[in-house]
Amino acid sequence: MADETTDPASRQQRWEGLAEWPLAACAAIFLALFSVKVLAQPQGLNQHIIHGLLFVLYLPFLVDYVARLVLAEHRTRWFVRHLLDLIVVVLPLMGPLLLLRLVALVGALQRAIGDAIRGRVVVYTAFSAVLLVYAASLAVLQVERPAPGANITSFGDAIWWSVTTITTVGYGDLYPVTVLGRIVAALLMIGGISMVGAITATIASWIVQRVSAEDSAQQAATVAHIESLQAEVSRLADLVAAQTEGRSR
Amino acid sequence: MADETTDPASRQQRWEGLAEWPLAACAAIFLALFSVKVLAQPQGLNQHIIHGLLFVLYLPFLVDYVARLVLAEHRTRWFVRHLLDLIVVVLPLMGPLLLLRLVALVGALQRAIGDAIRGRVVVYTAFSAVLLVYAASLAVLQVERPAPGANITSFGDAIWWSVTTITTVGYGDLYPVTVLGRIVAALLMIGGISMVGAITATIASWIVQRVSAEDSAQQAATVAHIESLQAEVSRLADLVAAQTEGRSR
Amino acid sequence: MADETTDPASRQQRWEGLAEWPLAACAAIFLALFSVKVLAQPQGLNQHIIHGLLFVLYLPFLVDYVARLVLAEHRTRWFVRHLLDLIVVVLPLMGPLLLLRLVALVGALQRAIGDAIRGRVVVYTAFSAVLLVYAASLAVLQVERPAPGANITSFGDAIWWSVTTITTVGYGDLYPVTVLGRIVAALLMIGGISMVGAITATIASWIVQRVSAEDSAQQAATVAHIESLQAEVSRLADLVAAQTEGRSR
Amino acid sequence: MADETTDPASRQQRWEGLAEWPLAACAAIFLALFSVKVLAQPQGLNQHIIHGLLFVLYLPFLVDYVARLVLAEHRTRWFVRHLLDLIVVVLPLMGPLLLLRLVALVGALQRAIGDAIRGRVVVYTAFSAVLLVYAASLAVLQVERPAPGANITSFGDAIWWSVTTITTVGYGDLYPVTVLGRIVAALLMIGGISMVGAITATIASWIVQRVSAEDSAQQAATVAHIESLQAEVSRLADLVAAQTEGRSR
Repeated sequence: MADETTDPASRQQRWEGLAEWPLAACAAIFLALFSVKVLAQPQGLNQHIIHGLLFVLYLPFLVDYVARLVLAEHRTRWFVRHLLDLIVVVLPLMGPLLLLRLVALVGALQRAIGDAIRGRVVVYTAFSAVLLVYAASLAVLQVERPAPGANITSFGDAIWWSVTTITTVGYGDLYPVTVLGRIVAALLMIGGISMVGAITATIASWIVQRVSAEDSAQQAATVAHIESLQAEVSRLADLVAAQTEGRSR
Repeated sequence: MADETTDPASRQQRWEGLAEWPLAACAAIFLALFSVKVLAQPQGLNQHIIHGLLFVLYLPFLVDYVARLVLAEHRTRWFVRHLLDLIVVVLPLMGPLLLLRLVALVGALQRAIGDAIRGRVVVYTAFSAVLLVYAASLAVLQVERPAPGANITSFGDAIWWSVTTITTVGYGDLYPVTVLGRIVAALLMIGGISMVGAITATIASWIVQRVSAEDSAQQAATVAHIESLQAEVSRLADLVAAQTEGRSR
Repeated sequence: MADETTDPASRQQRWEGLAEWPLAACAAIFLALFSVKVLAQPQGLNQHIIHGLLFVLYLPFLVDYVARLVLAEHRTRWFVRHLLDLIVVVLPLMGPLLLLRLVALVGALQRAIGDAIRGRVVVYTAFSAVLLVYAASLAVLQVERPAPGANITSFGDAIWWSVTTITTVGYGDLYPVTVLGRIVAALLMIGGISMVGAITATIASWIVQRVSAEDSAQQAATVAHIESLQAEVSRLADLVAAQTEGRSR
Repeated sequence: MADETTDPASRQQRWEGLAEWPLAACAAIFLALFSVKVLAQPQGLNQHIIHGLLFVLYLPFLVDYVARLVLAEHRTRWFVRHLLDLIVVVLPLMGPLLLLRLVALVGALQRAIGDAIRGRVVVYTAFSAVLLVYAASLAVLQVERPAPGANITSFGDAIWWSVTTITTVGYGDLYPVTVLGRIVAALLMIGGISMVGAITATIASWIVQRVSAEDSAQQAATVAHIESLQAEVSRLADLVAAQTEGRSR
């Protein structure tokens, strides 16, 4: 207990271990309620109830951000490294992006897939891309719909716009015209570039491995080869030792 | 026979081995008929005949999907991993994408090319890109032409739109306006990103190999080097063994 | 002589060695004349002279294509691998792309740069990108200018369109409307994707090298390490051999 | 002293070491004043003062360029390799790009981050992207605002345009119409491609490392493995040497 409280790294890790699943659950409920708010546009009392629940579900993320900042070993470094978390937490309109926490849920999905590192990268990329497109579509629809001159005014259009943006195709038939919509777009573009990068990197790693596997004599020497050589040297050493013993007798 | 029926992996592989070429043939005929339907727009009896044939040629793919799902070792895992197959099979309008099965034909083409892994990646990428552009052009033309306000109304326009989309350039002079057209576009974008990834990865693997080949003393130790060292250690062991023998005589 | 004529590979290589510089010179003059034709738009006799010269300069490329096809070891394989060469040669409007032959000139430029493989990739990429943008701008201007409804009508616009296309940004403020203009665009996009791939791959190779150089104990074992180990084993073998000799005396 | 003046490489390095921080300071002040000029648009005397100060702050970069060219070991090679520096220095309108010198400041930021090579690439990429977007927005706004038919007329629009350009999305809702604006755009696109390349390369290097770490027997043999093997061979050599000694006694 004593050295746990003196080791900030482990305290932060313990917090993250405890908070991961409750936050993922909050994010899932938040997403469902936000979807209802944006897509069904409830009026009167229902609207107030949903706003209240969204606010309550938003608080744990604020608490989590402050807790991780306070528990961090190097607070300045942690702050710089997690600027994106700050943006997501302090901009209420970024709310839907909270559901990126759902990426934690990918763990469950992944057990059905197997756990090769490349398989995991593919699953994370696909799952994050789908979540990001859905969340960005909700967010952009919410902020664009009431704006004058907006061209993203239905959920179908919002999804289509998100897909053309995350893939960096950008036809320009639809585009956000408000500042908040453009911030959502910028985050989506950064997500798209990382997604493209992850796909390219996975293919590159697969090709590099296949190319080197092609000509076995040109393969890099592996630990297995070194160990087989080491076994031979050991056998030789035993032989010499036996000789020495034999002569000393 | 007995242990084959108890080993689902080998049963699925046997099915895929048997089904590969018949399905590729069905896909090629399907593509030809679909091309006639979209480009020549036959009327009356001819239209009914083509619709009938397209339906008949579509059935083997449904049978193949069900068979592979039933024969899969881990059905849930296989289902999750082959969601794209499901989309292609259950969405009749995705029909033209069935011809991606033609990628199997690349095997024949490839024998004329040689079989270095990088060469194979280049050939698969180029062949898939051409097929994808052709199939997506047919599909988008079919669903967009009758839509009000559509701007993709000729086959030339459809090809041009497919090329600007698969390369992620996306001028926006042409773009789909129907839901089905947008789904075709999304699949084409995913194909484009993978294509770009494969090209980048092939160049990267080539550069990495050339850089390491440049300074031979800095090359990674290969299996060949380890084997030459091992030969020397063996020679030494023989020498010591001969010594021991010599003394024991 | 006898075994040179029986070895098609070496005959093709000798042809390419002989033809490289004359073809690069033809390409440079072709480019200069084509630039005059497109940008100055000479009339009357001058126009006829330029057309005549362009035709004469185009013939060597046709001869070169046929010669390389005839001399190829595996003609079918060579034909499939050089489809792009065929397109450039048989489409007179692709003429400006002949100047990609100028890439041969990069050899001279390169000697001023040094010859690390990564440096060479960067120089080839930059030089090819500049040439491709210039040639595609000339070609697209030539085919678009007379078309009704065309929006690429000045050389400045053509250069700007080429840059937005090769980088896959594609604003869509300018775009080709003719079939030939779209073919030029497609070749430019393929060039752009390869260019992006080469840049990414160069950075990737640099990062991989720097990451592995960071922790020297985790570096891959190199040939130098194996050789130092081999020297030690040899020294040991000499010792044992001396022992054997000492005892046998 | 004597051999320092005869070694151009070290003289150039000493100049760069001396000039780095003063130039970064000049760039920071230049950026601040340029921001005031573009965003506040001061009139009368204030405008003249700011123009004067901008000119004074621009001179050190001209001096630095000439000094580095003169001190370079291979002047032609240096000139070819630093063409971008020349463009930035001779085009006064590229002024804002001078602030890319601020990348030197990243050194300070980086000490708060740690110094793994991948971490450094990420920080440089993010910092350069933010600087490039800010500088390009100022520059494009400055040159586009007075142009007839321009659509980038506010700083918010300029930032939005820069983001869609650096990510190569390019909706085309906003685009430069002047020659200078298009040159700024081209530099921004080149920056965007390098940024995408750096992100992809970082992910690729991480995946390659994780894949090889997965199966330890398939890991590349490291220097550490070779050293442990070398220790065993040495122990064996000592054993044989002791034997030889024992017999000679």
